[in-house]
Amino acid sequence: MRNIGIIGGTGPQGKGLAYRFALAGHAVAIGSRSAERSAQTAYELNERLGGGTAVHGTTNAGAAVFCDVAVLAVPYQGFAEVLAGLAPRLEGKTAVCCVNPLGFDRQGAYGLYVPEGSAAEQAASVLSGSAVAAAFHNVSAVRLRDDDGPLEDTDILVAGDDPDAKEVAMGLAAAVTGRAGVDAGALRNARILEQLTAVLIAVNKNYKVNAGIAVSGLAPGARDRAAAA
Amino acid sequence: MRNIGIIGGTGPQGKGLAYRFALAGHAVAIGSRSAERSAQTAYELNERLGGGTAVHGTTNAGAAVFCDVAVLAVPYQGFAEVLAGLAPRLEGKTAVCCVNPLGFDRQGAYGLYVPEGSAAEQAASVLSGSAVAAAFHNVSAVRLRDDDGPLEDTDILVAGDDPDAKEVAMGLAAAVTGRAGVDAGALRNARILEQLTAVLIAVNKNYKVNAGIAVSGLAPGARDRAAAA
Repeated sequence: MRNIGIIGGTGPQGKGLAYRFALAGHAVAIGSRSAERSAQTAYELNERLGGGTAVHGTTNAGAAVFCDVAVLAVPYQGFAEVLAGLAPRLEGKTAVCCVNPLGFDRQGAYGLYVPEGSAAEQAASVLSGSAVAAAFHNVSAVRLRDDDGPLEDTDILVAGDDPDAKEVAMGLAAAVTGRAGVDAGALRNARILEQLTAVLIAVNKNYKVNAGIAVSGLAPGARDRAAAA
Repeated sequence: MRNIGIIGGTGPQGKGLAYRFALAGHAVAIGSRSAERSAQTAYELNERLGGGTAVHGTTNAGAAVFCDVAVLAVPYQGFAEVLAGLAPRLEGKTAVCCVNPLGFDRQGAYGLYVPEGSAAEQAASVLSGSAVAAAFHNVSAVRLRDDDGPLEDTDILVAGDDPDAKEVAMGLAAAVTGRAGVDAGALRNARILEQLTAVLIAVNKNYKVNAGIAVSGLAPGARDRAAAA
């Protein structure tokens, strides 16, 4: 079990992931710009988890100090600045980026231009002393919060250039889906995972659902064999 | 039932789709630069379909004349030139683009820069007299060829700005998966579907599989209700 710090843990995605990680037995620190808001979120989650103190609320800096794995779940606006402030505290640790740099116009969501290619590559550039992977972009925050049990119909796609960070993220995926994440290749593929969220936003609108992604054609157990390899 | 012309129908994706469309009862013309190669492909497919003449081989121009729906399955290299030559013959018809503009290097596959944003938007620009949708990017050519029966674990994501072209593509998807395609929003989202193939190529390499994509969180029948709406 790990100590997980959610940077931006009071937003829907960060809060939903915090719930799932705590439910799976990890210790979780909710980070936020506002320690009051994160304390409130931690209180709600601990209540929902049946009491106990698996989740605690703190600042983003506090979550960075606490964790051995940081989950980056802040909005893309201001993302690089937040990370730059946390870089010294995340040195030598693993960071899993689930940030989706999206804009919205009349046609729906679209991928914003990111000079480094993706938010995850930007994170790797700013957090040069950390091992970075990308995951959890495409899982519905509503289903993280509301579904009973693991999201067995859904896959967590994981991109990364650091094998250890990728393995950590693939393992954490089990807290969400009940099985290892799917190795989706190099960190640069994070750009595709980030933008894929724009497609899911369109699907959600067209069908009034909370859509996610699954990989077809993987034999049962293939994910876990790969995770163990 | 439709008259479908596969532009670039002797490649793996075009040939696999031709097989599925003919199996579903559509009349299919295989187009190719070489009428001899397309005749050979048509012969193979008709044999496999148990005789008959559901599939015929011709040139790309011949397939464009024959069809009411053109499926664009040529390699991205030379794509715009091929389309420009066919534009007059495709005027007033529907074109469904499944072209993936990908490059390959030591890290695997990656999305090539496309000035229009995506191959599908490029097609819409060159084929200004046709109605363009984008679909079938992410379905495995091997599974199209080898699987018995519809790929029920897989979804065909469809992007488009023209509602009629999108509806045609969503309907054709049933020939592959046994159910309507999933409305993935505006034509610009084709860029994401095209690049998503790079992720699936990474998954195929990492797990030795023929991966595809499914959308989770859609209730049974949701695809068909939307297709009928």
